[in-house]
Amino acid sequence: MDNRLKVVYRLAVAQEEQGAFARALLLEQTVETPEEVAMRVPVVQERLMGEIVALEPLEEGGARLVLHLPVETAMVDPAQFINVLFGNASLHEQVVLEDFELPPVLMERFSGPRFGIEGVRRQLNVYDRPLTASALKPVGLSVDELATLCQSLAEGGIDLIKDDHYLADHPFASFAQRVQRCQEVVQEVSARTGRRVVYAPSLSGTPSEVLRQAEIAQQYGVGAVLVAPMLLGLPFFYELVTRHLEVPVLAHPSFAGAQRMRPETLLGKLFRLFGADMIIFPSFGGRFSYSRATCRALADRARQAWGPYRSALPVPAGGMQVERARELVEFFGRDVMLLIGGSLLRAQPGPELTARARALVDSVIEATTLS
Amino acid sequence: MDNRLKVVYRLAVAQEEQGAFARALLLEQTVETPEEVAMRVPVVQERLMGEIVALEPLEEGGARLVLHLPVETAMVDPAQFINVLFGNASLHEQVVLEDFELPPVLMERFSGPRFGIEGVRRQLNVYDRPLTASALKPVGLSVDELATLCQSLAEGGIDLIKDDHYLADHPFASFAQRVQRCQEVVQEVSARTGRRVVYAPSLSGTPSEVLRQAEIAQQYGVGAVLVAPMLLGLPFFYELVTRHLEVPVLAHPSFAGAQRMRPETLLGKLFRLFGADMIIFPSFGGRFSYSRATCRALADRARQAWGPYRSALPVPAGGMQVERARELVEFFGRDVMLLIGGSLLRAQPGPELTARARALVDSVIEATTLS
Repeated sequence: MDNRLKVVYRLAVAQEEQGAFARALLLEQTVETPEEVAMRVPVVQERLMGEIVALEPLEEGGARLVLHLPVETAMVDPAQFINVLFGNASLHEQVVLEDFELPPVLMERFSGPRFGIEGVRRQLNVYDRPLTASALKPVGLSVDELATLCQSLAEGGIDLIKDDHYLADHPFASFAQRVQRCQEVVQEVSARTGRRVVYAPSLSGTPSEVLRQAEIAQQYGVGAVLVAPMLLGLPFFYELVTRHLEVPVLAHPSFAGAQRMRPETLLGKLFRLFGADMIIFPSFGGRFSYSRATCRALADRARQAWGPYRSALPVPAGGMQVERARELVEFFGRDVMLLIGGSLLRAQPGPELTARARALVDSVIEATTLS
Repeated sequence: MDNRLKVVYRLAVAQEEQGAFARALLLEQTVETPEEVAMRVPVVQERLMGEIVALEPLEEGGARLVLHLPVETAMVDPAQFINVLFGNASLHEQVVLEDFELPPVLMERFSGPRFGIEGVRRQLNVYDRPLTASALKPVGLSVDELATLCQSLAEGGIDLIKDDHYLADHPFASFAQRVQRCQEVVQEVSARTGRRVVYAPSLSGTPSEVLRQAEIAQQYGVGAVLVAPMLLGLPFFYELVTRHLEVPVLAHPSFAGAQRMRPETLLGKLFRLFGADMIIFPSFGGRFSYSRATCRALADRARQAWGPYRSALPVPAGGMQVERARELVEFFGRDVMLLIGGSLLRAQPGPELTARARALVDSVIEATTLS
C-alpha cells in the first residue's frame, strides 16, 4: 500500500446501487474508460486501475467509499493530483470528497507549509498566546487612509495586518504605493515598540500579475502575503509558494465554497499540503454557517501531526467580534490567529481604533493566562 | 446602469430573513465591513457599495436576489471579477450563483473566445453538420499505442482527437513524444484524405509547466489544446488563452463540480467569457446526472448572442454512446461537437475502431440531413 493514495468519498446512493456506483467511480478516477478497455493493457490493469478498499453503507443512508488510487498520475504535479482526487468525481452530484491520506511518495512530492505555526511564531516573536490579525478595508480607501488604519491597528498591538481581499491594483490605491506605505508603518511601529507587526498584502490576479506583486511586496520587505488558493487555482498556488515566495502565506477562502468537499479537507488539508502557513476560514458564530464541529475538524487538520508537514495556523474569521475573543481562544486553544476586521473597524481610525485593538490583544492575553 | 455588474443569486433563506440576508450579502460582495464603516467614506458610499435591484420570494421557497455590483474592483482582472461574482458568497451555504450580466466596460475588459464556433468550423473545414471528437485513453498506454489509437480514430473520420485529461508528462508516455507522434498522425491522415483532423493535447500542471507544454504543442503545430479551467484556476486560464495560445481551446470540466454555481453559468458563461472555444460538459444520458434542462441551458449560454463574444461550441460528453449520436444531434442541433471516448474505444484499435468511428461520423451526417 506504500504507493497508493487513499481517498474517502461519501456517496448519496441507494444501497442496491452502491456496488455498481463505487466500481464506476473507481474507473472515473483512474482510467476513465470501460473496464474491458482498460483490462486489455497489462500495465494499465496492474498499475493504474486502483481498487475499492471499503464500501460501507451508512445508517443515515448512502455509503462511505474508500478507494486506493495509483500515484503514477497523482504525483506528476498538483493539477494531476487534484484530477485524481476530485476531478471528474466533482461532477457527480452524489459524491462528496471526505478525506484523503498520502503515501510516502506523495509526501516527498508535495512539501506543505514552509514556515508553519512555528515559523510564523518565530517571525512574530510570540510563542505563548493566540495571535491576532485584522484587515485594511473597505476597498475605496486611499493609500493615506489605509496607512492610517494600519497605524492604528499596529499601535493597538495587532500581530498581523492584512489587506482586504478586494484590494487590488486600483487607480485610487495602487498596489505598489499601498504596500510601500503600509510596510513603512509596520516597520516604524515595530522599531519603536520592539513588538513585531507584520503586514500581509493581498496578491491577486493572473499569474504574471501575481508574480509582479510578489516581487514588489518582497522587495519592500513584507513579512507575509495573503493569497486565495481556490481563486488563483491550486496548481498556481503551489508553484507560487514553492518557487516565488520567501515569506509565510496566509490563505484566504474566497471562491472555496465547494459544498461537495468537506471544508476541513479542502481548507485544512489541501491548502496545507500546497503550502499555506496560516489558513483563514469562516468560523462558527460569525456571518457564515460553518458549525463548531466543522471548525474543530478544520483546525485539527491544519495543526495535527501529518507526515513531514509543518502545522498550519488556523485563522478563524468572517464576522468575529472583539467581545468573543475569549470564547474563541477557549475553543481553538493557543495555536490560533484571531482575524477580526469589521468589529475593530467600527472604531474611528486613530486613538479609538488603537484602544479597541489593544483591548482585543489584552483579552487574548487574559484568556490565554486563564486557560 | 452602464457600469454596474448585474448578478443573480438564489437564496435558501426563510422569507422573514430575506431582506436582512440580501443586505448582508451586498456588503459581503462589496465592502465586507459593517455598513456604518463603509458609509463613513463618501467615495465608498457613492461608488463601491452596489445596490439591491430585486428581491423576489419564490413559490418553492427561498428568494431570487439581483444585485448591481460596482465594476471598479471586478474589472481589475479575472481574479477580482470572480471575487466580486462569487468569492465570499461561495462560502454561504444558502447562496447559489444563478447568473450574471456584464456592462459594456466589462465586455471591453474580457474578450471571450478567440475562435468560437465559426473559427473552429473554419479550422476543421466543416460547416454543415455537428462535429465529432474522441479521446486517447486510458492513461498507461505507450506513445506507440496512443498513436495507433489516434490513427484509427483519424481514419474513421473523427474531427477532433483529444488527450484524456489524465495524460500528463509520464515517463511511459512523455508529453513531447506523445504530442509529436499524434500530431504527425493527424497531419498524415489529413494530407492523405484531404479531410482536416485536429489533435488536442491536454495541458496540465503548474503555470510554468503548462506554458512549457503549450510552447511544445504549438511548435509541433497542434490545431487545438485541452485545458481544465477550474483545475488550473480561472485567472491563469484567462492569461493562458489571451497571451500564450494561438489555437482554439477545448475546456474540460474537471474539478468544476461546484454545486452552488449553476453549471450553465459556470461552464456556459464563465468558461466562454474567459476564452474557451469549445466547452466539454457531462451530458444527460451518460455517466453523469446533468438534466436535459441543464444541458439545454448550458448549450444556449455557450452559443447564444452575448455582447461582443463569439459563440462557443458545446461539447456534450461523459459516457455518450455511438448509438445515441442521432438523439444528441436532434437535441443539440448542428452547432455541437460530439465527444465520444469509451463507446468508440470498446472496438479494437485498427480496422475495427476505424470502422466504428466511421459509423459514428456517418450517423452524424445522416441525422443532420434528416433534421
